[in-house]
Amino acid sequence: MSLLVVGSTAFDTVETPHGTATECLGGSSTYFGLAARLFTPVRLVSVVGSDFPQRHRDLLQGHGIDLAGLETKPGKTFRWHGRYSQDMNSRDTLDVQLNTFGDFRPKVPAAFCATPFVFLANGSPATQRSVLEQMEAPRFCVADTMDLWITHERDGLLELLRRIDGLIVNDGEVKQLTGKANLIQAGRACLALGPKLVIVKKGEHGCFVFSNFFHYALPAYPTEAVVDPTGAGDSFAGGFMGYLATCDTISLWNMKRAVAYGTVTASLTVEGFGVERIAQADRDTVERRFHELQQFVSGG
Amino acid sequence: MSLLVVGSTAFDTVETPHGTATECLGGSSTYFGLAARLFTPVRLVSVVGSDFPQRHRDLLQGHGIDLAGLETKPGKTFRWHGRYSQDMNSRDTLDVQLNTFGDFRPKVPAAFCATPFVFLANGSPATQRSVLEQMEAPRFCVADTMDLWITHERDGLLELLRRIDGLIVNDGEVKQLTGKANLIQAGRACLALGPKLVIVKKGEHGCFVFSNFFHYALPAYPTEAVVDPTGAGDSFAGGFMGYLATCDTISLWNMKRAVAYGTVTASLTVEGFGVERIAQADRDTVERRFHELQQFVSGG
Repeated sequence: MSLLVVGSTAFDTVETPHGTATECLGGSSTYFGLAARLFTPVRLVSVVGSDFPQRHRDLLQGHGIDLAGLETKPGKTFRWHGRYSQDMNSRDTLDVQLNTFGDFRPKVPAAFCATPFVFLANGSPATQRSVLEQMEAPRFCVADTMDLWITHERDGLLELLRRIDGLIVNDGEVKQLTGKANLIQAGRACLALGPKLVIVKKGEHGCFVFSNFFHYALPAYPTEAVVDPTGAGDSFAGGFMGYLATCDTISLWNMKRAVAYGTVTASLTVEGFGVERIAQADRDTVERRFHELQQFVSGG
Repeated sequence: MSLLVVGSTAFDTVETPHGTATECLGGSSTYFGLAARLFTPVRLVSVVGSDFPQRHRDLLQGHGIDLAGLETKPGKTFRWHGRYSQDMNSRDTLDVQLNTFGDFRPKVPAAFCATPFVFLANGSPATQRSVLEQMEAPRFCVADTMDLWITHERDGLLELLRRIDGLIVNDGEVKQLTGKANLIQAGRACLALGPKLVIVKKGEHGCFVFSNFFHYALPAYPTEAVVDPTGAGDSFAGGFMGYLATCDTISLWNMKRAVAYGTVTASLTVEGFGVERIAQADRDTVERRFHELQQFVSGG
């Protein structure tokens, strides 16, 4: 089934111990889309400036991503510049220029409004809710958020949480959101805020999945070659939602497989700068890693 | 089969966000022993001062721990005083008084020398090797170590690594030992130093198990009530070695179960100050948590 993502498109300048990549294609919708397209066609809603080159559109479209919802506005595309620590477990933002993304008011094309699977990438809760209001009762809607909204748009975020099916956040965010220092307590408390499913990303330590029916832990794929962690979270979400959109039912079994596929697509993204590696990946590579991950978890 | 541990016995004063415990029974051999005794009788080799009370001996012996190797020397017992951070992921040592443990020269009683399973808790590599020299070809010998020895006794440690079967260390230690920032690379590099098995503890994030035949990841038991993390690592080792000592073969299957049992005994220890909780635990509690951990990992 079809899958819609609403999020940012950006030019990222990234410094890691492995080098620097300047103004490479990035943004949540891009990472999500390039991961999800490995499973299902993707509909993208985002905004860029007039400086966004045709070659990036070609890349995305060439990977089965429908850009009918990619608005082009006068001005420049969103730019982000970050530097990772030596162990790549933390990063400093050196510069942010929101540019055309600064007043992003997502307009979902009419042809996209009945999309059954929806991912609301990180954005203000008001913006995320405005997307939901344009959709015709999506079957499964998942959102991301960040510390900024947890602190400054808490009420709006809590309203959003009552209206979505799933939330994908990192460990720090879920602790901040719930005020619980223990991650298991935080996951449970987050479920009580509305979502039926809470996925807590722990970076190199994998993820926890919380629902009222089961708790589940999966380690990260054991990659030996982390080059640039940017986009790992959105690529995780893309693999997760992309696989789920191919399933007949949103069962526990399928959800667990989807989490493993998300883990695999995230592992591919971090092995190259920007979208380099995930854009090159094919389904065979994904299946091979999926199998390796199963072995890693089972010890088999 | 019987199991021997050589390590410290201490009085710990511990400050955590949940309170302070003063001069409670601690030390690596104690945590190890109280976890391992849930599976098999334990032989303990350690040293205490003349201030070590009979009630602690009674506690240990009452739990099937043979104290024939617990030497009592004039002077005081080893004392450690630490304070944990708010999230309990780091700690400061406020005071250490080695006392009688300062010149600990383990003497393995003749009746213990043929023990097939041996755990060398954290200590100087020279001290650890001196134990091996007293043993009659143990079947399975595992050691712990720490940053101090990796930095200052590197050659001695490398010699030890060539003579043991398994190493249990934390993520920071294995990176320091091997000079690899990536944990998977570090685990592989550590295997090349000699041990057939390397278990990397990641605290609340569970552990990785490396061997030349398989890699395996297991999350921590999802405890919601961490009171005092002291002794988690030694309790893990105790559950791991304790279970393994009951097995007919050291197979992959048994190793994986042993890692899960270690994860469970560690989870019990951290739910109380000092050895309070692990000393109270019984095998039924362990089996229940073992089952819950399997469910957490399988999502079942």
